[in-house]
Amino acid sequence: MKSLSSLEQLAEALRRLPGVGPKSALRMTYHLLQHDREGAEQIGKAMLNALNMVHNCQSCNTFTENEICDTCADTGRDLSLLCVVESPSDQLMIEQTMTFKGLYFVLMGRLSPLDGIGPQDIHLEKLIQRATDGAVKEVVLATNFNNEGEATAHYISETLKARGLNVSRLARGVPVGGELEYVDPGTIARAMLDRRVT
Amino acid sequence: MKSLSSLEQLAEALRRLPGVGPKSALRMTYHLLQHDREGAEQIGKAMLNALNMVHNCQSCNTFTENEICDTCADTGRDLSLLCVVESPSDQLMIEQTMTFKGLYFVLMGRLSPLDGIGPQDIHLEKLIQRATDGAVKEVVLATNFNNEGEATAHYISETLKARGLNVSRLARGVPVGGELEYVDPGTIARAMLDRRVT
Ligand SMILES: [Zn+2]
Ligand SMILES: [Zn+2]
Repeated sequence: MKSLSSLEQLAEALRRLPGVGPKSALRMTYHLLQHDREGAEQIGKAMLNALNMVHNCQSCNTFTENEICDTCADTGRDLSLLCVVESPSDQLMIEQTMTFKGLYFVLMGRLSPLDGIGPQDIHLEKLIQRATDGAVKEVVLATNFNNEGEATAHYISETLKARGLNVSRLARGVPVGGELEYVDPGTIARAMLDRRVT
Repeated sequence: MKSLSSLEQLAEALRRLPGVGPKSALRMTYHLLQHDREGAEQIGKAMLNALNMVHNCQSCNTFTENEICDTCADTGRDLSLLCVVESPSDQLMIEQTMTFKGLYFVLMGRLSPLDGIGPQDIHLEKLIQRATDGAVKEVVLATNFNNEGEATAHYISETLKARGLNVSRLARGVPVGGELEYVDPGTIARAMLDRRVT
């Protein structure tokens, strides 16, 4: 068997990127080597540098270059509230709403038994430790509202309630600005069941 | 202005890949740092290694790790025929047909004035030098049959014919297995004009 050339090794490596197949890996390789060597160097160096610098926050599990991330180190936060999200992007979305002043735990995934993603992959032990620090009074589950996110929320909820914690979930309902005619029946049904006294 | 974190620098760098926007660059970054650090290391190292090892063949302009690529170094080739292609992939396609035993010149692009891609970007001077080495008797233009490929073939043809070289172009016509009913009229028209005595 012929050993791979440096070019073939690069094309092979690029296939590890999510969503990149053999054809686009080769197209990327040709493009970088012929038309953007500066970009290639930038990618190669940034990749190895990030591997060296970035790890998971000891407290909330998000990415950080320190032991504790900036959010966890912020002394102005409400230590009694802990919001569980699937990803750093989800945390950012919630931060932008300015409606939550507690701290976070980032699962870095969601349960997906069919894909072999179990409780250890979403760092459940670390979450349990974090949530039972004595300061946390309420855990707000903000995983996605699709099948996997709901299953993840359910599993975490059962686990934490068994340890005596108060667990809540973001409300479901008609989106702000939503016209009933265009909202799916399942959402309307949920909004009806969860209706609030005004 | 806040300086970018190592993670942000990596996401920024990945946007240099063709077809990768900000959202997928961030998704790739999260995926690699959380779920495939081995893959990230593989990509980073392969990238820097390829930059170091791979350059353009002095003779045909394709990618190689030597001064002269394997094809150009092959003494069994017909030195009187030179086939001009846009990319290494196109060369590979022609090689697989086993219908051409001459040598190649790889433009690594095609003329595209609207994108600012001119004659120097397709290494026209290098092609002229290569084609006028005294051994080449015929230059076969095998650029693509789209607008840019046709314009590129036309430009090269005029340039090389002005230097007294014989220039040919791959034949256009009805594809093998093509049923006239499903072939576009332009292709049929061309096949009619280029009809051959049998
Ligand atoms: Zn943290
Ligand atoms: Zn060569």
